This record gives sequence, structure tokens and C-alpha cells, in this order.
Amino acid sequence: MVNMLDKYGNYKDIKKMTVEELEHLAKDIRTFLIEKVSKTGGHLASNLGVVELTLSLFNAFDVDRDKIVFDVGHQSYIYKILTGRKDDFDSLRQLGGISGFPKRNESIYDCFDTGHSSTSISAALGMARARDLKNKKNNIIAVIGDGALTGGMALEALNDVGYSKTNLIIILNDNQMSIDKNVGGMSTYLSKLRVDPRYNKLKDDFNSTMEKTSVGKGIVYSIDKFKGSIKHMVVPEMLFEDMGIKYLGPIDGHDIKAMSKVMDLAKNIQGPVLIHAITKKGKGYSFAEDNPNKFHGIGPFSLESGELYSSSKNNYSKVFGDELLKIAKEDENVVAITAAMPDGTGLKDFAKTYPTRFFDVGIAEQHAVTLAAGMATSGIKPVFAVYSTFLQRAFDQILHDVCIQNLPVVFAIDRAGIVGEDGETHQGVFDISYLSCMPNMTILAPKSMEELRPMLRWALNQDSPVSIRYPRGGDMEGINLEPLTLDKIKKGRWERLRLGEDVVIIATGKMVQMAEKAAIILEKHNVNVTIINACFIKPIDKNMIKDLVDKNKIIITLEDNVISGGMGSEVLNYVNTLESFIKFKSLGFIDEFINQGDINSLYKKYNLDQEGIVNSVIEML
Amino acid sequence: MVNMLDKYGNYKDIKKMTVEELEHLAKDIRTFLIEKVSKTGGHLASNLGVVELTLSLFNAFDVDRDKIVFDVGHQSYIYKILTGRKDDFDSLRQLGGISGFPKRNESIYDCFDTGHSSTSISAALGMARARDLKNKKNNIIAVIGDGALTGGMALEALNDVGYSKTNLIIILNDNQMSIDKNVGGMSTYLSKLRVDPRYNKLKDDFNSTMEKTSVGKGIVYSIDKFKGSIKHMVVPEMLFEDMGIKYLGPIDGHDIKAMSKVMDLAKNIQGPVLIHAITKKGKGYSFAEDNPNKFHGIGPFSLESGELYSSSKNNYSKVFGDELLKIAKEDENVVAITAAMPDGTGLKDFAKTYPTRFFDVGIAEQHAVTLAAGMATSGIKPVFAVYSTFLQRAFDQILHDVCIQNLPVVFAIDRAGIVGEDGETHQGVFDISYLSCMPNMTILAPKSMEELRPMLRWALNQDSPVSIRYPRGGDMEGINLEPLTLDKIKKGRWERLRLGEDVVIIATGKMVQMAEKAAIILEKHNVNVTIINACFIKPIDKNMIKDLVDKNKIIITLEDNVISGGMGSEVLNYVNTLESFIKFKSLGFIDEFINQGDINSLYKKYNLDQEGIVNSVIEML
Repeated sequence: MVNMLDKYGNYKDIKKMTVEELEHLAKDIRTFLIEKVSKTGGHLASNLGVVELTLSLFNAFDVDRDKIVFDVGHQSYIYKILTGRKDDFDSLRQLGGISGFPKRNESIYDCFDTGHSSTSISAALGMARARDLKNKKNNIIAVIGDGALTGGMALEALNDVGYSKTNLIIILNDNQMSIDKNVGGMSTYLSKLRVDPRYNKLKDDFNSTMEKTSVGKGIVYSIDKFKGSIKHMVVPEMLFEDMGIKYLGPIDGHDIKAMSKVMDLAKNIQGPVLIHAITKKGKGYSFAEDNPNKFHGIGPFSLESGELYSSSKNNYSKVFGDELLKIAKEDENVVAITAAMPDGTGLKDFAKTYPTRFFDVGIAEQHAVTLAAGMATSGIKPVFAVYSTFLQRAFDQILHDVCIQNLPVVFAIDRAGIVGEDGETHQGVFDISYLSCMPNMTILAPKSMEELRPMLRWALNQDSPVSIRYPRGGDMEGINLEPLTLDKIKKGRWERLRLGEDVVIIATGKMVQMAEKAAIILEKHNVNVTIINACFIKPIDKNMIKDLVDKNKIIITLEDNVISGGMGSEVLNYVNTLESFIKFKSLGFIDEFINQGDINSLYKKYNLDQEGIVNSVIEML
Repeated sequence: MVNMLDKYGNYKDIKKMTVEELEHLAKDIRTFLIEKVSKTGGHLASNLGVVELTLSLFNAFDVDRDKIVFDVGHQSYIYKILTGRKDDFDSLRQLGGISGFPKRNESIYDCFDTGHSSTSISAALGMARARDLKNKKNNIIAVIGDGALTGGMALEALNDVGYSKTNLIIILNDNQMSIDKNVGGMSTYLSKLRVDPRYNKLKDDFNSTMEKTSVGKGIVYSIDKFKGSIKHMVVPEMLFEDMGIKYLGPIDGHDIKAMSKVMDLAKNIQGPVLIHAITKKGKGYSFAEDNPNKFHGIGPFSLESGELYSSSKNNYSKVFGDELLKIAKEDENVVAITAAMPDGTGLKDFAKTYPTRFFDVGIAEQHAVTLAAGMATSGIKPVFAVYSTFLQRAFDQILHDVCIQNLPVVFAIDRAGIVGEDGETHQGVFDISYLSCMPNMTILAPKSMEELRPMLRWALNQDSPVSIRYPRGGDMEGINLEPLTLDKIKKGRWERLRLGEDVVIIATGKMVQMAEKAAIILEKHNVNVTIINACFIKPIDKNMIKDLVDKNKIIITLEDNVISGGMGSEVLNYVNTLESFIKFKSLGFIDEFINQGDINSLYKKYNLDQEGIVNSVIEML
């Protein structure tokens, strides 16, 4: 049988194809996706869910002039395949390879970089307004999932869209979940639409209704005819219509014919339109259909069994979840909050064990933080577990709602430092900078997984905001460091791990392990290193710094954060006041965005692996 | 005639009073408010709009156990007056006086600090969940304006509230505007509710309906009776109900009897309830009713004429608006964006002159930034004018949507530095820190109002993100500094203003004027100062720093930002690499939140006025 993807590998072919051929192509694309992602890892389930949706987009729109913004962007693989990047899929998400997200510098067909959730409607509205100002006529389309619609900025954008008379097409890809299960009033509302009897009726008579309004093969609808024909489709008096956005749906997102036609219709409507498409995440690969969550972002896996190749060894997220569960058993005031990431943050067991003390607020980091602040004013001890890169969205809430009131909220900041294959939109290399400038904030980082346990307990005993940052993955092989015990954790007090007379390395978090590796190498060169575990990033240990400055000639700080506003900058600010003659160097990430790649390669690239540290030390001696 | 406020100045009296007495009290409160605020300045119009609403809250709820969260909080004056702070109103917003916002450390009756918009529902939901976990029964009430409802985090919270079964009362104070006119689909939607014929019918038969369901004087409703009686009130199939929140309204927010009863009803409903109250901003003071915008946040004014005492002299916002208008005339691709602040940011004339190139997105900073990013990808040159403290909310969007793609968006950051009477929630002392850590960002600050003009032109000629930060108010008296001309502005190049052999002060923005004042004093002490205008905060001028380090013994940096992650830290990071013996000191704000007070007093308090600088210099010599 012909492989349609080999034969029709480009978007330009789509419009010429019959629905049957497109359905065949969809099948071959799925096979391609599953095979490629099984080798490279990536976002599988979300892409399997939008194969027909993407083919319909190519069918209805002209990507040489129309612009499609993919929200989050991890569902853009099919789009990439058909816009000339099929042969690059072996390098997906690898260092130097193609990105797992849309990138303007990768292809002219990618019109906006995405990565974080809920940005697409804003960006698309910006493009639509630019188009209007420039008197152009092209279509602008935002493709957004139901999960992303819980994000505040998507709702801010909908509000603005509803007010605007601008032509803009929003395709709501409703797969009934975000990364984890969807939550919230919006979800309840969308469920209602889905079970509306009109949906099933629609599926039956959609095609006949549409045929009547089409003229010949070129589908040309007059708005009047259209208005008549969509009566069946439009569920009256709804949220979107209330806000001034024309609603079309719900439509079966896997029905290429129906989807293409609805998109064609949408093009001819004046003002903003929302197409509500129902899709199935993971569609066409039984393992992914059964467990879309596991196949959301996945590493390399076995095609036959659907099992991950990498052993699911211990990692920081698991240790966090495990310890929080233990603490919760002892203290009924402890609760956990997540923004649509119960699994990724290690809270799955907590959610099961304490469902009434577990709050998944949806993709809504801002709300999560202030919700925690509200709880903290009332004697509850909230822990917000969140990735470093996503906590950025709640900068104002941390500062304004938590820190000003000095409220005891614990931020468990996962994926701090380099995250790897997700690339620059997801690297957690800014949190030290954006948290350090906030008065009342305490920041800790465990030097090992086991040290996260006492730190979490310490944090929950404080009467002020505490952040604990820890990296993706687990500890380094071959490095065993005794964790601090709870009684040894004192606010602003560092730990000395090694004593050497040649140079001091003040390292934080997992970089302590990297420093230890470097020290072992340096020992062989007869260079003896003092290693300090800067377990407190804020406040820094001024007494220890003073002592170190008095007794040493060289101090190096080491962190997996940008240098600007990072721990090294804070230490230097204090060292400077001591008016010493110490030689000082901050090691951290330079002032540029860090692309995708495996974590080790990226530390190496930025001279923050053991060899890089060794070289820096030798250079300074 | 008895002054009811003198007689019944405490919330405990409210429940005993008749509706007629309460109406009388409302009148006397208005007189009190107008008189006090005319002397101290403050948020007048919003408070005049909620006199009856607040009295109704005291009537229906028990603030000794119930908790009321005021969104933004500038409408909490009446609440403050009646919870024991009437006699403190002469010190309103003054250094050491009572705050213009709720403050937990000011009164046990303030349960949550607010200041920025759209936080109240999140905080209240947190309290409600804490209450449930602790098996308590008190009421939690969020009072939120229609403007604040356009903020994404309020919508995130509504989404979570809708999902929750928690008892929570949201009072939508619909005065049909935020600070400026309200915009967006939400506004259109609320307007529809307002003109619903049921509203007028409701006003007529509300009382009779209510009477029937009340039992004796103590109003006790059974839920069943209630369900019947609210049929009149509930406009079916609406946004709030769709999301799972019971809707009551619209109600005349100035009708104490109706409001108190609806609140009583709301207490007895299981699950979340929203009361939609229609109020008039500025009610009872004709000048404020006619011009609520002017009387939103106002300085001292004449009671008789409603005119401000302070002359409306020139300020940075005006210069910005004026220059942007000129540029827009020359370049049709230039557009302006505001988040509900066309007046405060100086864009009023722009909006009038170029309505199709002006975008007020509502209180939605996140959306504003990514909207600008979308425009910038399509050949439009957006300028987002925003206060420093509010831009915090878009940290992630600046980093993720603008900086990663290196898009030419201009951020015109007003109210950078100390803002004064609004206090710690509004001080603009973090922006240098949170922007400096972002790769691809350029940050400028004009040393004078006139220098803002060429800087804005320079910014609009760049092909990357540019922030220009400038302070509230105008230039200092008696300091005249020649502004840089456009041709003299080169990326990362500083300007030398004075040449002295004793000490170098590297100052940025208006702090250059402060340094100049200090230099004049120091001259009299025979201390000669070099003053550098650090017009670029990022990138810093490394060549000049190298030269300064070579030729001088003391360098002081001076900025109106926190030291942590500020300009001084960046300069020190570079100075450190030069391995010199220079004495270096960063002057800026220390690691604490800065309370309210007039701007000059606060600079003095933190030793950043001319005397403070002089003392720092002398200390270092």
C-alpha cells in the first residue's frame, strides 16, 4: 500500500486530496509520529489528537498567507511535518535539531514561538490587529486546548477579542484535559456543551446540511445561507456568544470533512469566531489513548509495549511528593496546590490520599499563589508545587500577595536549572533572580534528593514565605553527600563540605554535586578545594562569607541560574562591602536564552560541568 | 441635625439602626469622606460609590467572624471608618498614617492586604477552603469591581470557584468602569445584564418579593422559599451560572434594604454565589459623579470647586504622551497599548487622535504584552505604557513571548521608583531587577523629562525589546540638565555630566538629578564629583566603567530600585572582573518593602536624597 506521507509530504498537496486520501494520510502520519517519538521522546498524545485538525487547517487555509498560532505549541508536529520538516524528525528536541515547539527562526511557517500555555489568542489578536492596520485580508487562527483556556491570560484575551470586531478564528481543541485532568468551571461548562443532544444530532446531519449550502466543488457560502445553516450548530446563549464571540460547534475534530467545512465557514464570518472541536488525545495508538497523561511528554519508549526505555529511577519530584505525604500525615493543616501538574510535580499519591487537601486549580499559576496566600492567612500551610518556568507567571502574586504580607506559603520549585529538551521556553534559570529581589522571601536548594526532605519540613515550620528549588531528574551517579538533618538547617547558615586551602567554591543545589566532581578531578592536580553548600540562597551566610574571605584568596560561586541577579551577584554585593583583596568569580548562565538539548550537553556547553569548573579554577589560580 | 457618624461611628451600631438611619449615616459618611480626602488626597470616587454597599455588608455580616476581602482595596475607606479608624483619617496615606488600602497589620478587621487588581476572589477562596478544612462556618466575601473582573487572575479564580462547592460570596460592584472606561467582552456582557428589563422590574418588586419570604424581623429564609423568590432575580443561562456560580442580581447597590436582604439570602445558599450590584462611582459629590476618573485617585482639592490645589505642572507621563503622539504622526506603524490606564499613562490625546491605533485591553497586563508581541511579528511597532508595579504581572509574557523571540516591543514604564502615598503595593522599585535578568532586553532611563523624548524615538528604531523607565511626577526644581539628543544615544553608551577627581557617581534616571544636587553640596566641601548618566541600565557601558576604574578610587552607583539584582549589582559584576582596587558602593533600596509617604520623605528615609548621598560620599572618602 502506498505511504501517503511519502507521496504527499507537503501541505501544498492537501487541498488536492480527497477526504479518503486525507484519512489515509492521517493514518500514515500517526504511524510516522509514533515511530519517531518512540525514538526521540516528545509530546505524543497531543499530536495524535490533532492529526485531522491539522490536515483540516491546511485544507481550509493557505499557510503562505494565513497565520496559525499553536497554543503551548507541543501539538505542532504534524504542522511541522507538512511544512518541510519531516526529514528533520530524527533530531526532534535534540541539541541542534528541530524544536518540539513552533520557532520563527526554524521555519517561515511558524509565525509565533510558543511553549507556555494560554498565549495564543493574545498573539493572534495582535497579528489580526496588525493585519487590519495594514489593510490586509489574511486569516489568523489560534489553536488552543481546553486546558489552556483556564489560564487567565487566555481569558483576558477572549475578553478583548469579544470587544473587538476583528476577524479572528479560535479553534478550541477540546480533548477534555490539559496535561492532567482538566478542572474548573470552564471544564464543567465545556462538558455541558459536549453532552448537548445537539452535538450528536449535529454529527448525523452535519454533512447534509453543509452540502446544501455548498456551491459546486469550490465551497462558497453567502453569509445569509450560512446563518441559516449554522442554526443547527449554534448552541444559543452561551459563554462565548455572551462575550461577543460567534460560536460554532461542537464538531468532531477527527472528521476532516466536517472540520474543513466549518473552517471554511468561519473564514466568511465577520468578527471573531470560535470553533469548538472535540478530539481524543492519543488517538490511534492504544497505549496513548488509554494513558494520554503518560504519553503527554514522554521519553523514548517501546513501540510494541508502550513502555518507557529509561528506568523510572528516583528523582526530586518523587522525593518531594513522598515527603510531603509523610508530613501531611503528621500535620493536618498541610495542603498541596498544583496548577494542572499533579503528576509532574510528584503529587499523584498526595491527591489520592488526601483529596480534600489537594487543590488542582488548572493552568492558573497566578490564582494558585494568591489562593495559597488566602489559606496562609487562615492557619492552613499551603505548598504550591510548580515548575520554575511556570512560576514566572505568578511573579506579581508572589511579591504582592505573599511577600508583602510575609505569609507562610511554601513554593516547591521543580525543574529549576536546565530542563533539557523542551528548550528555552522551559529552562528554569531565572527563579533565583526573580525571587531574590523580593523582600521577606527565603530561598533554599537541597544539595541532594534526600536533603529535600528536611528542607521541606523546615520550610513548613517557618512563619514567612519559603521557596525550595530543585532540578529535574535525580542525583548524579557516584556522588554521595550526607544530607543536612532538620536540626542542622538554620536560616541563612551554609554548610562546609570540604576544606582545601587553594580555592573556595560556593555552590548551590545540585551544583554542589558538580563542584564535588570538579574537586575530585582537581585533587589529582594537587589543587585543594573548599566546598560550601549554599543551602540558603537567600539569605546568604554573611558570617561564613566573612570567614572565607579572611582565610582564602579565591572564591568562586556556582549556580544553575543566570548570573544577573543570581546568587553570585548577591554574594559579591556582600563581599564588596568587606573591602578585601579576594579574587572572586561567579559561575552561572550568561545573558542568553538556552536552547534545547540534553542536560549534560548544555552544562558542558556553558562550562558549568565538572571540566568547565576545573578550567575556571585553574584559570584563576 | 445629629451627625450620625459621630453618634454611630462603629460597625457594631449598624445592625441596630433602621434603614432611614442608615441612609442618614450614609449621607454623613459621604460628607466626612469628601472633607477628609479633599485635604489628604486619596481614592474618592470609588469610596463614594460603595457607602451603601459597605453599610449593607455590616448589616448582613458579622465582621468579628466573617471575612471581607476588598479587591484593589482603594474602596475600603468606609470599612475603615466603621472599624475603629475614623479618627485616623487625617493621616490617610501619609508617612506613618493609615493606609489607603486594607492592611492586616493596621487592624484585625482587615483580613487580606490588597492593592493590585483582581486578587480578591483567589484570596477569598483560599480563606473559604481553609475554613472548610477547619470545620468553621463563617462567611467569606470578596468585593470586586467590574473592571477588576477583566484581570486574568480573577477569571482563573472564578473558574476554580465554579468548580468548587465551597460557600463563598462574591459581590460584583459594577460601577461600569475600572480606573478608566471599562472595555472588553465582559463589559459588553455586564451591560446586557444591566439593561435587562428584569432589572427595572426587580427594582420595583424586589422589596415586596423579599418581604413575603421574610419571617418576622429576623430574616430567616429556607432555601426552598429562597429558590422560589429568586426566580425573579436570576437571569437564566448566563456566564456565571454556566461556570457553576449562582447569580443574584442585578441589584441597586445604593438601596441598603435590598442589598442587605440579598446578602442575607446569599449567606443561606450552598456553594458560591455572585451578587451583581450596580453602583455609581463618585455618588453624592457632583464633581466626582461628573468626572469619576479625575476623582479616582486624587490629590488635595477644593471642596467648593472640585479643583485640585496642586497645579497640573508638567510631568513624565505628559511628556511621554506628547512625544508618542508626535512620533505616531510621522510613523503610521506606531500604536499604543494600555491596560486600563489611558489617563494615568498620558495617552488620552493619543486615544482621541488615533482611536484605531490605540488599544485599551482592560486590566490585563499579561494579554497586553503578548498582544504587543503578536503585533511586533507583523510589522507594527507597539508601545505598551504601564506602571512599573503593574508590569510585574506580565513578567512571564515579557520573558517568554517578547524576549525569547527578540521582538521590538517598547515598554514605557511609568511610576518607576517611589510612587509615594499608595505605599508598598505600588512602589516601582523592582523593575530593574526583574527586567535585567532577561536576555535580549534593553533598559533605558532618561535623566530628565526632555530626555524621554529622544529615548522614545531611539526605542522605536530598535529591532529588539526596549524598556524605558521613568518616575512619577516631574523634574526637580533648580536642576537643569541638557538632554541627550537622538544622535547621541548609542546602545550601552553612558554620558558623563561632571568631571571631578574625588569620587564617581553612576546614577540612573531621575537619580541623576539627585546626584547633581549632592554634587553641588559636595563642591562646597571641596569634594569634586564625576557624575555619569547611566542612561542605559542594560547593557551597561563597560568601556566607560573600565576607564572610570582606571582613573578613579571610588565609584558609587545610585538607583531608585532595590539593590538586589539592580543596576549597581550589574556594574559590580563587571567591576569585579577588572581586578582593580577601586572602592565601590551601590546605593539603592534595601531589602524591605517601602511604606507609604510622600516621595521626598521616603528618599530621605532611605538615605537616597541629596544629604544621604553626600553622607555616603563623605563616608567613603
